[in-house]
Amino acid sequence: MISNKKQTNSGKGRTFTGKKIKKKNTHNIKKKTNKTSANKFDQKPVMRIMFLGGLNEIGKNMTLFECCDDIFILDCGMAFPDGDLLGVDLVIPDFTYVIENINRIKGIVITHGHEDHIGSLPYLLNKVKLPVYGTPLTIGLIENKIKEFNLQNGVDLNVLNAGSTVKLGCMKIEFIHVNHSIPDSVGVAIHSPAGIVVHTGDFKIDCTPVDSGMIDLARFGELGNEGVLALLADSTNAERPGYTPTEQTVRASFERLFARAEKKRIIIATFASNISRIQQIVYCAEKTGRKVAFSGRSMINYVSVAKELGYINIKPETVVDIDIIDRYSPEKIVLVTTGTQGEPMSALSRMAYSEHKKVDVGFGDFIIISANPIPGNEKSVSNVVNELLKKGCEVVHESMYEVHVSGHACREELKILHGLVRPKFFIPVHGEQKHLKKHAELALEMGMEHQNIFIGDVGNVVELNSSYLRQLPNVQSGKILVDGLGVGDVGNIVLKERKHLSQDGLVVIVVTIDHNSNQIVAGPDIVSRGFVYVRDSEELFEDVRQKVSDALYNCSDNEMKDWATIKQRIKDVVSRLIYDKTHRTPMILPIIMNI
Amino acid sequence: MISNKKQTNSGKGRTFTGKKIKKKNTHNIKKKTNKTSANKFDQKPVMRIMFLGGLNEIGKNMTLFECCDDIFILDCGMAFPDGDLLGVDLVIPDFTYVIENINRIKGIVITHGHEDHIGSLPYLLNKVKLPVYGTPLTIGLIENKIKEFNLQNGVDLNVLNAGSTVKLGCMKIEFIHVNHSIPDSVGVAIHSPAGIVVHTGDFKIDCTPVDSGMIDLARFGELGNEGVLALLADSTNAERPGYTPTEQTVRASFERLFARAEKKRIIIATFASNISRIQQIVYCAEKTGRKVAFSGRSMINYVSVAKELGYINIKPETVVDIDIIDRYSPEKIVLVTTGTQGEPMSALSRMAYSEHKKVDVGFGDFIIISANPIPGNEKSVSNVVNELLKKGCEVVHESMYEVHVSGHACREELKILHGLVRPKFFIPVHGEQKHLKKHAELALEMGMEHQNIFIGDVGNVVELNSSYLRQLPNVQSGKILVDGLGVGDVGNIVLKERKHLSQDGLVVIVVTIDHNSNQIVAGPDIVSRGFVYVRDSEELFEDVRQKVSDALYNCSDNEMKDWATIKQRIKDVVSRLIYDKTHRTPMILPIIMNI
Repeated sequence: MISNKKQTNSGKGRTFTGKKIKKKNTHNIKKKTNKTSANKFDQKPVMRIMFLGGLNEIGKNMTLFECCDDIFILDCGMAFPDGDLLGVDLVIPDFTYVIENINRIKGIVITHGHEDHIGSLPYLLNKVKLPVYGTPLTIGLIENKIKEFNLQNGVDLNVLNAGSTVKLGCMKIEFIHVNHSIPDSVGVAIHSPAGIVVHTGDFKIDCTPVDSGMIDLARFGELGNEGVLALLADSTNAERPGYTPTEQTVRASFERLFARAEKKRIIIATFASNISRIQQIVYCAEKTGRKVAFSGRSMINYVSVAKELGYINIKPETVVDIDIIDRYSPEKIVLVTTGTQGEPMSALSRMAYSEHKKVDVGFGDFIIISANPIPGNEKSVSNVVNELLKKGCEVVHESMYEVHVSGHACREELKILHGLVRPKFFIPVHGEQKHLKKHAELALEMGMEHQNIFIGDVGNVVELNSSYLRQLPNVQSGKILVDGLGVGDVGNIVLKERKHLSQDGLVVIVVTIDHNSNQIVAGPDIVSRGFVYVRDSEELFEDVRQKVSDALYNCSDNEMKDWATIKQRIKDVVSRLIYDKTHRTPMILPIIMNI
Repeated sequence: MISNKKQTNSGKGRTFTGKKIKKKNTHNIKKKTNKTSANKFDQKPVMRIMFLGGLNEIGKNMTLFECCDDIFILDCGMAFPDGDLLGVDLVIPDFTYVIENINRIKGIVITHGHEDHIGSLPYLLNKVKLPVYGTPLTIGLIENKIKEFNLQNGVDLNVLNAGSTVKLGCMKIEFIHVNHSIPDSVGVAIHSPAGIVVHTGDFKIDCTPVDSGMIDLARFGELGNEGVLALLADSTNAERPGYTPTEQTVRASFERLFARAEKKRIIIATFASNISRIQQIVYCAEKTGRKVAFSGRSMINYVSVAKELGYINIKPETVVDIDIIDRYSPEKIVLVTTGTQGEPMSALSRMAYSEHKKVDVGFGDFIIISANPIPGNEKSVSNVVNELLKKGCEVVHESMYEVHVSGHACREELKILHGLVRPKFFIPVHGEQKHLKKHAELALEMGMEHQNIFIGDVGNVVELNSSYLRQLPNVQSGKILVDGLGVGDVGNIVLKERKHLSQDGLVVIVVTIDHNSNQIVAGPDIVSRGFVYVRDSEELFEDVRQKVSDALYNCSDNEMKDWATIKQRIKDVVSRLIYDKTHRTPMILPIIMNI
C-alpha cells in the first residue's frame, strides 16, 4: 500500500511519497511483522531515520536509525557558530530524543574523526552511557578528546576496521572504506530487517590517495546488486561539476613550491586533522633536508595521535620543537601550523599580527596556505594574507597553485556512487539547502523518480521500506549553544542582548530612592559602555541626567512606588533624547535602589 | 640628482628610489623652478601625491595631487565597515590634512558615481567649501546625495563630459572615458608643470559596452606617446588572469533565463548603481512583455536620477509600482531589487525571511542574483539563497550562469593599459595589499623597473618628477567612523567595549554607601545583560552578591573612602568567581552611589 499523503510538520521538510513506484531494483527484503509499523501503510518492517543535525547546515552531523524498536546513532558532531551567535564557542545537537529513548539505543557509530562528526560526543557521553564504534584513528582521536573532558571512566570505545561489521540490535552496521581528507574514514551499510540503507559519510573518490587504498567502490557496487533501500550521501560539493583532484596533486605542488622557496623558511598552514596533507609535507621536508616543527595545540594533538597509531610516518630526527627552530637556518625548516581560516587566535594569525610568542615572520618566509576558506571566513583569511604580505612574506594561497584539494566528492563522483548503489530512495545529507537541492537534481538526472527523493531538515523523521517512504511527525531537535562551561544557558534572549550591546553599547541609569519619603537620595548617575567616547560627550550625559531628574520629579507618589513604571519612563525619555541627538539606540538599563 | 635614501615613515609604505634610472620614455616636461621643491633633489617642478584612502583597503578612495603649491582632490569615497567595527555605519577618511590646507585646494574631481568614490563628499562639504567636478551622471548622483544631507546651499557642482578639461591652479585635469559598472565613468590625465600623471579611476576594457562607447584607449595611447610621468591604476582584479567579459554577456544570459522562467515571476537582485545592468533587465522585460517594478530605496534613487538624465531608456508604461504588482500575473512581472550582498535590511533578505511588507516569495518565483558576493559577504548571501530555496523559489546565483560580470580590469586588460601609457613611475591603487602586490608584479613583467614602482599605504606622500620618486613624511590620515549622527565619536575604546559586550555581555553591580558611616545602605544589586539566562542562574547571582558583600565588609574605613579601590576589588572577586563557575569573562561594571 502506498501513500500520497503529504506531511510537512516543520513546514520545512518535504516528503515525496509516490502514487506509483516502479520497481527498478530488486530488493531482497524479508517480509515480517514489525510492531513499530502497525499501521495502514505496510506490514513489512520499516526503517525510521531521524535527523538531529547535518541538514540545512554544515556540521553537527547526527542521524538516528531505528528498526524493530532498536536504534543506533551515526556520528555526533558539532558545528562552529555563525557570526550571529555572538560569543558562542560551539553548537551541539539537542539530545532530548536520545535521552528519552536511551533504553532503545544500542550504540554510536562514527564515520571519521572530524569535529563535525565527533565534536559533540563528550557532551552526549557526559549525559548517557553508550558504546562507541569507529576505526582505529577515529577512536584514537575520540579517546584524546574524551581525556580533555575528564570523562575517561566508563567510556566504552570499540575499534573496528573498514570491512568489519558491528551488530546493534536487529541491525548490522558494515564499515566501508572511503576516501576523505582524514585517514580511516568509512561509509556504512546498515543491514536491517527493512533492507539495506547506505550512508556514505563524508567521501570522495581518490584513485591514488596518499594514505590508504582507493574507496571500496566494489563493495558499494555489490550492495547495489543486492538491492539498496535507501542512500544517504554527502552533498557538500553537489554544486561543483567534474571531479575533486587526487591528494597527489598537492604533493606535486608542494615539490614545486619547496624548490621555489629556495633559501627561505617554509611555513605551511593546513587543517590539523588533515593527516595526509601533513604526511606529504613531512615527505617533502625529508626529501629536501628540512626539519619539521608543529605549531598550534590541535596540530600537535592530531599529529601525536596519528604518529602513535602509525597513520603518519616521520623520522624521529625530522621533528624539532618550535622553541628551537631559530637554531637552524631558514632553508632547513618547515613550520606546519594551524590557522587556515584566519581565526584570530590561531598560530598563523598571531604570526601575521606580530602576536606569536615564538615566531617572527618577514622577508625570509615562504608561506603556503594549504586549505580553502570555509564560507564565512574569506575576509579573515584575506586579512591574514594581506598582513603577511605587508611584512614582506611571500604568500601562496590562490587555487591556481593547487596547494589544496577538497575532501568531498564533486558531481561526477556522486554520479558514480549513485550509479553503483542504485537505491530505491535517496536522501541528500551533509549540506545546506542549496547543496541538498543540487544533489537531489543530480539524482533526478540519474533517473531517480521525484517522489523517491526526500529533502529533509533537522528534526525530521522518515519511515521507509521497500514499498514507501513517508514523513512522520518531527522529534525534538535544535541548536544547543556552548559558551565556556555553559551548555544551553545562552539562548535567544541572551543573544539578542549581545547583538544589541554590540551595535550601540549601553547606558546605565542608577537612582537610589528612599522608600519612606519617595525622594531621590542618590543619583541619577549615568554610566555608559560601548556607546560614545565619554569624555567628549559630557554635555549629552548632563542632558540625560537632567531629563531623568525631571521625569522622576514629575512622578506622583503612587507612581514612585511602582518601579516598573519608573523604569519604563526613564527608558522612554532617555531613548528618545539619545536617538534625537545621536541617531543611535543603545540599550537603556535603569536600576533603582531602595533604602 | 637622484636619491637612494629610503624613507618608511609609517613602517608600511615602501619606496623604491633608484640609483640609476634609465630614460625609456621621452618626457616633455618644462624645467621651471618650484618653490615647494626647493631641495637638494631637483630644481624641476615636482608632483606630490597624498593618499587619504584606497590603499590597502577596498573603498574610501581619496587622493590629493599637489604641484607648485596647488592641490586638488581626486574622489572622496567611503568604505563599508569590516565586521570588527561593531555598530559602525560607514567609514570615511580623516580630512585633517584637507582642512589644514584648504587655502591651497582648488577643487574636487570625481571619477564616477559609486559610493566608494562619492560617499564621503557630504561629510567633507559639511566642513569645507570646494567646487566639485564630474560627468553628468556622477554630478546627478552627488546632487541627490547632497539633498539627503540638507547641504543644498552653497555646494558648487560642475558638470564636465569625458574629453573635457578643467583647470585647477597650475594643473589641467582631463577626463578620459573608461568602461566600468556605472555609466559616465572617467579616468583622468593630470597635465602639470611636473609632467602628465594618469589615474585610471575604476575601469575595465569593454569593446561592446551597453551604455556608451568603448574606453578611450586611443587617448591613453596618445598620452603614452607624449610621455607620462606616472600611472596610478585600479588593482581590484590584478589577481585575476585573462579578461573581464563584456557586459553584453549578461544580456545573453538574461535572455536565456527569461525564457527558462516561463510562467514564473522574475526577481532580479543587482547593485542599484549598476545602471547598465538595470537597462538590460528593462530591455529583456520589454521584449518579453513584462512590467518592471523596483524595490529598495537606493534602487529607486539611482533609477530616478538615471532616467532623469537619460542614462536609462524605459517606456513609461513598462514601470509599475511595487504596490500593484499583484494585479499582474507572475509571468508579466520583473521585480528589480537591492540585496545582492545578503544585507539583513535589504529588500531581497526581507523577502527571503518573510519580512518584506509587499512581496511574498515562493514556488512561483524565479530569482536571479546578478552580482558576486563582495569578500566578507559570502556567508550572508549563501544564507539568503538557502532561505529562498527553502521557500520553493528557483534561484540562479552561480557564476556558471554568467549573470554578472565585474566592472574592473583583469590582468590582460591591465597589461594593455600599461602598454599604452608606458609611464615612468607606477603606483598601483584601489586594492588590498595582495592586489597592489600582484599589480606591481604585472608592471615588472611589463618591463618596468623595480625602483620605479611604489606600493603605498594610506597617509603616504610621494614626490616625483622626471628624475626621481621619493617618499616624504606621512600626512595625517585614518578611518573616521560614522555611527548614526556621530562622526568620529566612536573610537578604539568604544569598539573594544562593544566587542567585549558582544562576546559575554555584562554584569552590573550597584551599591549605595552612606559616606558618613561608610555603611552599605542599599545593595549590592546585581543586574546582567547578554551573559546568562537570568532565571536559570539565581544561584550564581546569589553567590556574586555574597562575594561582593564579603569583599566590602572586609574593607577598612579608609578603603571604603577610596572608590577606585572598592571598584577594583569588586571587579576582581566577581570576575574570578564568574570565570571559575562559567569560564566566561563578561564585562564587570561596579557602580557605587553615595548618599
